[in-house]
Amino acid sequence: MSRILLAGHGNVGKAFHELLLEEAPRLAALLGEAPKVVGVLRRSGAWLDENGVGVGATLLSRRQSLSVVDALDKVRPDVFVELTTSNLQTGEPGASYIRAALERGIPVVTANKGPLLRHYESLTTLAKRKGVPLRFEGTVAGSIPTLNLHEFTLVGNPVTRFDGILNGTSNYILTRMAEEGLAFADALKEAQELGYAEADPTSDVGGHDAAAKLVILANHVLGVPLSFEDVQREGIERISAAAIRLAAKEGYAIRLIATADAATRQASVAPRLVPVDSSLNVRGSLNVVRFATAHAGSFTISGKGAGGRETATAVLSDVIHVLRGRTT
Amino acid sequence: MSRILLAGHGNVGKAFHELLLEEAPRLAALLGEAPKVVGVLRRSGAWLDENGVGVGATLLSRRQSLSVVDALDKVRPDVFVELTTSNLQTGEPGASYIRAALERGIPVVTANKGPLLRHYESLTTLAKRKGVPLRFEGTVAGSIPTLNLHEFTLVGNPVTRFDGILNGTSNYILTRMAEEGLAFADALKEAQELGYAEADPTSDVGGHDAAAKLVILANHVLGVPLSFEDVQREGIERISAAAIRLAAKEGYAIRLIATADAATRQASVAPRLVPVDSSLNVRGSLNVVRFATAHAGSFTISGKGAGGRETATAVLSDVIHVLRGRTT
Repeated sequence: MSRILLAGHGNVGKAFHELLLEEAPRLAALLGEAPKVVGVLRRSGAWLDENGVGVGATLLSRRQSLSVVDALDKVRPDVFVELTTSNLQTGEPGASYIRAALERGIPVVTANKGPLLRHYESLTTLAKRKGVPLRFEGTVAGSIPTLNLHEFTLVGNPVTRFDGILNGTSNYILTRMAEEGLAFADALKEAQELGYAEADPTSDVGGHDAAAKLVILANHVLGVPLSFEDVQREGIERISAAAIRLAAKEGYAIRLIATADAATRQASVAPRLVPVDSSLNVRGSLNVVRFATAHAGSFTISGKGAGGRETATAVLSDVIHVLRGRTT
Repeated sequence: MSRILLAGHGNVGKAFHELLLEEAPRLAALLGEAPKVVGVLRRSGAWLDENGVGVGATLLSRRQSLSVVDALDKVRPDVFVELTTSNLQTGEPGASYIRAALERGIPVVTANKGPLLRHYESLTTLAKRKGVPLRFEGTVAGSIPTLNLHEFTLVGNPVTRFDGILNGTSNYILTRMAEEGLAFADALKEAQELGYAEADPTSDVGGHDAAAKLVILANHVLGVPLSFEDVQREGIERISAAAIRLAAKEGYAIRLIATADAATRQASVAPRLVPVDSSLNVRGSLNVVRFATAHAGSFTISGKGAGGRETATAVLSDVIHVLRGRTT
């Protein structure tokens, strides 16, 4: 039986834990035996149980005081799933946790953007040097396969550039402004009331969140060692309902487009005019990525780019890849 | 060095052969050494060369009379790439070639729809029994990852149904009828002049080609043992320009939609009304598939669904999977 140590039990962590329990029969068929969460680490403590830690009530009892590093040493899991809160400035504490696991030869799956955004080169190099998988599909565009799409399905057809919508909150706001004629402030307020936007919406509407995903995607898919500071970034705060109306009249929508090019090494996140019938013009909180390839034109993939359960499916896919020995 | 035996040197076969030579540096980096085509089999004979068979001039000399089976025995390749002409009625001769290779323990990659359409169960069972990979991404939607998308990137999130446009020729015709007000016969003639449609267009406009891809997709992605005869099929021959105009007035496009559902086991190919702003409403000769999933709503992927070079990228991806030992 494969044993998982899970750090972080918030929105994505809990959803992953639940998904693993729900999917146990299918996972057993696929892997011989369903993997088990034998440890959950939260800021408030650690819960360890070789018979499997439950999602709900079990977590209320048997709390231990144990650091992540001590837990890694004690549990020696088959996979360390790192889903702690993301910090886009430092990548910590996730980066240190991931590093500790890799150094111990323990495979890592994460959906935490911060560590990959700030330490892409050093973390992937460490993983390679140790010969240990480090997978992070969940860091970009939630449930939509982007990193794995490239790694597993476009391996015969290199990606040369991409553009897309990588932040659902800002896309929701732009969609509501266009469809209801709302002002930016009103659409933002609505998004906050619906739980799509944080109390401090800067990261979403300012393009920081999209830029972080762009950096990870550019490093992984284009092989361009881009950093956050290399991305030209402009948010949607100054887009007016009037500008959206004017664009619509000419057959365009305004969308916050993230784009990077392997040849020019240019990358940006900025509001752009997109033809209304373009495959990039997805509505509401959807995400979309269009990959331009060397040999077969462009592909476009769209879907739900956020949400705990949605992101958990990406984490689970990566865990399965690790357990089946599919590593690159 | 990995050695490839290639059967069929038509549109896709030649494009694959060329792509392999062009991509040699990248393949060498990826695999240690770039694979070589050490044999090409055509109806007119066989060309074998352990130093690599060239695409052009080499094929004019050194022809041998050798059956496919004898060539498999003689060459014992690491991968047999089967790209002979597809026969949707019988699946032959491709099915026999594939079977001969699998029985000899030789991995197979194919873009030939006929064998998988007519012998899905027996061929995949034989491959499993022999423990030998059989991969066929190129049989469905050309360059767009569909089978591998499911296999490698949605493994944590089962697909429950799909719908999409799987035939570029009929979509081109419907697009031209809508955008230029052409009658079906005139749009078809234009498609034939541009090389998008065959002299006998029945398979494309009658929905046979789309139904064949649907069957392979349903078997592989939904695990539903559907046969060609199970698909309710209706073509686009009787769609009038007037009907398309009427639909457009109400905000719809008419598209030839292939759909299959794991729960109901129903499958059909038929003209449907699609909202103009739907992700399924792709234009021209593009293909699109929308996968509904258990845990994260729907994904849509679109791109170039046909063309020799486009399909060759799918074949190359599968060859790389085989050579890296990524099999299911």
